[in-house]
Parts: sequence; C-alpha cells; structure tokens
Amino acid sequence: MSKVGVLLSGCGVYDGAEIHESVITLLALDRAGADVLMVAPDVELEVVDHLSGEQSGERRNVLKESARIARGEIKALRDLSADDIDALILPGGFGAAKNLSDFATRGAEAVAIPEVARILREMRAAGKPIGAICIAPSVLAAALGEDEPGLKLTIGNDEATAGVLEELGASHENCEVHRFVVDEERKIVSTPAYMLAERISEAAEGIERLVVEVLRLVVSE
Amino acid sequence: MSKVGVLLSGCGVYDGAEIHESVITLLALDRAGADVLMVAPDVELEVVDHLSGEQSGERRNVLKESARIARGEIKALRDLSADDIDALILPGGFGAAKNLSDFATRGAEAVAIPEVARILREMRAAGKPIGAICIAPSVLAAALGEDEPGLKLTIGNDEATAGVLEELGASHENCEVHRFVVDEERKIVSTPAYMLAERISEAAEGIERLVVEVLRLVVSE
Repeated sequence: MSKVGVLLSGCGVYDGAEIHESVITLLALDRAGADVLMVAPDVELEVVDHLSGEQSGERRNVLKESARIARGEIKALRDLSADDIDALILPGGFGAAKNLSDFATRGAEAVAIPEVARILREMRAAGKPIGAICIAPSVLAAALGEDEPGLKLTIGNDEATAGVLEELGASHENCEVHRFVVDEERKIVSTPAYMLAERISEAAEGIERLVVEVLRLVVSE
Repeated sequence: MSKVGVLLSGCGVYDGAEIHESVITLLALDRAGADVLMVAPDVELEVVDHLSGEQSGERRNVLKESARIARGEIKALRDLSADDIDALILPGGFGAAKNLSDFATRGAEAVAIPEVARILREMRAAGKPIGAICIAPSVLAAALGEDEPGLKLTIGNDEATAGVLEELGASHENCEVHRFVVDEERKIVSTPAYMLAERISEAAEGIERLVVEVLRLVVSE
C-alpha cells in the first residue's frame, strides 16, 4: 500500500487550502487504497472573510486550520521526511501561494518557505512523485525551478501566471480542466482544477486522474 | 434540473459542518446534474481547536465559516424559503448539534434554532424531500419529532444517541455506513457517514446513495 503525504496550507480557498480540491484528493487516494499522511506548516496566515472576500485583519495558525480538513489527524510539516512517504500531493487554494510560498505577492521573485522547500527537495532527491493542483505548481516552481530548469507543469491556460512560472524556471504547458500534465522524468504531475473549473465535478475529474497518475509513478520505478 | 439547498453549520467537524461530508454531498449533487444553493445561519459558534480537540475560547460566525466550504457562494438561511428549492440536505459535524440545534448539550430536551425549525417545517409542509447525514438527523428530530411522531431516521447504531432521538419523537432504525434509511411517506433520507465511517470512502458511499435517493424523491411526486 502506498503512503501519500498531503500538504495543506489552511482551510479555505482565499487564505488556505482549497477545501474541495483537498477532500477530492483524500477521497481519490482512499478509494485507490493509499494510506494518507496529512501535514501542514506550523506558521500563521492572514484571514480572509470568505463571505465578503475581504481581509479581516485576524491571524490564524495554518496547522490548526488545516486540522479541520484532516479531522484532527495531521502533523507538523517539520516532522515529515521524504523517508516517511512514497509520494506527496499539494492541493491548491491561495494558501499555496501565500502560506507555503510568497508567490501571490512576489511572483517571479517568489520562494517557498524553508520547510516546504526542504521537503520538496527531499522528494526530488529520492525520486519520489509529487502532485500539484490548481495554483500549487507555483510552489514547485518557486522551490525547484532554479535548480531544475525546464520542470514541466501546468496551471491551466492563464498566460500571465504561466509567464511568471517560466521566469521561475518552469516550462508551462496549457492543460484542460479534466486533464493533467506530467513531467515523466521528474515524476511531477499537475492539473488546473479551480484555475479553470466552473463546477466541482470539473475539478474532481482532473484531480482524480492526477491521483491515479501519481500512484502509477510510485510503482513505476 | 433540481435545485437542492445544502444547509451548513460552520467549517470543521468539531464546531461546524463536517467538511468531507459537505464536499462529498456537493460533488454528488453536481455529478447528478442538480443545482446547489448553500445556506447557513448568521449566528456565532464556539471555536474548537481541531489540532488539540480543545475549545479555544474564540467565537466565529457560522455563515462566514461556512462560506469557506462554499467558496463564497452562500446566503443567509433567513433568506431561503422552501419555494426556492426542491430538496434540502444537512451534512453532519458537531455544528449540526451545536449551531443548528442544542442537541449536543440538551439531548432529549433539544430544540432547533428558530430559522432552522422554520425551513424544516416549510419543507415538510411543501412535501419536499430532506436528507440528513451523520448527526444531522438529530436536528430533524428536535425540530419535527413532536409534531410528527414516528419520523423514521438513522444515526447508525449508537444505542444511547438513538434512545435520545426516540425520546424526541423519532423512530430510529439501525443502519450500516454504506446504506441509508428512508421515511418514504415523509420523504426523509438519512445515512450514518462519520457516525460509523472509519475511512472517507465509507462515508462517501452512504452519502452518494443518499443524494441519489433524495433526487429520486424530488421527481417521484
């Protein structure tokens, strides 16, 4: 049975992990018979009121809020090593671009926070697959793009965002919502989900395929 | 196309709507071609830290937190009438028993909050189906049990909880996690989900069947 890490960034599309993408990932992994290990960084986030779309001025803890999606079964990212898992998946949501990295504010100058960069580099060094959903491929580009130019990924078809990912060293490929892009050599899989989805079922179709592909790469060694 | 209301009670199993149950409901409805209208009451909740399981002393707004699951597309329950929807589904989570009713603290003396009791009575008066997941059937028992004794429902097989529901006027039927119970005459469908589920895929199986059954009851007039 494969053990798959799921890296969360809070709980809610505007300041954390996108909830639908996270749950669809968990369900697809469970249905495929994988064991799931949820993790999140023990850092703060700036709260966005999801009713008004405005920042509320409040701060919350990313690990505690991610624990809502995990029903309490989660550990701090600092306690996860690539040795513990066979693959790692990052759901999207603004949390990926605000809490796991500073992509939302720094664009082509973005870096991943140190413990996120650390686990991603460990996964790459171990040759273990990584899946990234929605805007989460930006975290991979920020963490790995400089060392691994040409990293193939997708965030859908937004030209401006794709251009910034290329400045970070990635090679962007346009992708439809129900499909995924795979960098076969590096075992990196990405799908646009809510970068393009207009309905939850559209996001689900691409994510379910991404999960199958990530698990295929685990056993393809 | 059926229009289905989904009544949320926050965002997180310990103080709000159970997130997996909510998302699985939304996905099943979308895949069945139903239109979804999310609602939540504009009231306060007492926050539980989902990492420690302890109350944090903080308060949050149920509507704003529910908006996280709804990606902002939600309205206040007070603005929903039974005329607006063909069916209503209540996901579980402690929010159902703490924010939609006081079942968690008052048991056999529980009542639903006024606007929840109002929409449930409207749905019953209109003969429109209601689905209730996990502990949410307790809200139906609290709101409707006295007026409609013998209301058939399930929360799985927990004898103590089932006994309290019967004191509220309901007729409890034991049910396995992948199945549902239907009160055909009243068009009320319930499934245990995380009252019994040990994995997300187990909860999903019962919820997906509940959604199909609720939609069948919409068209069975």
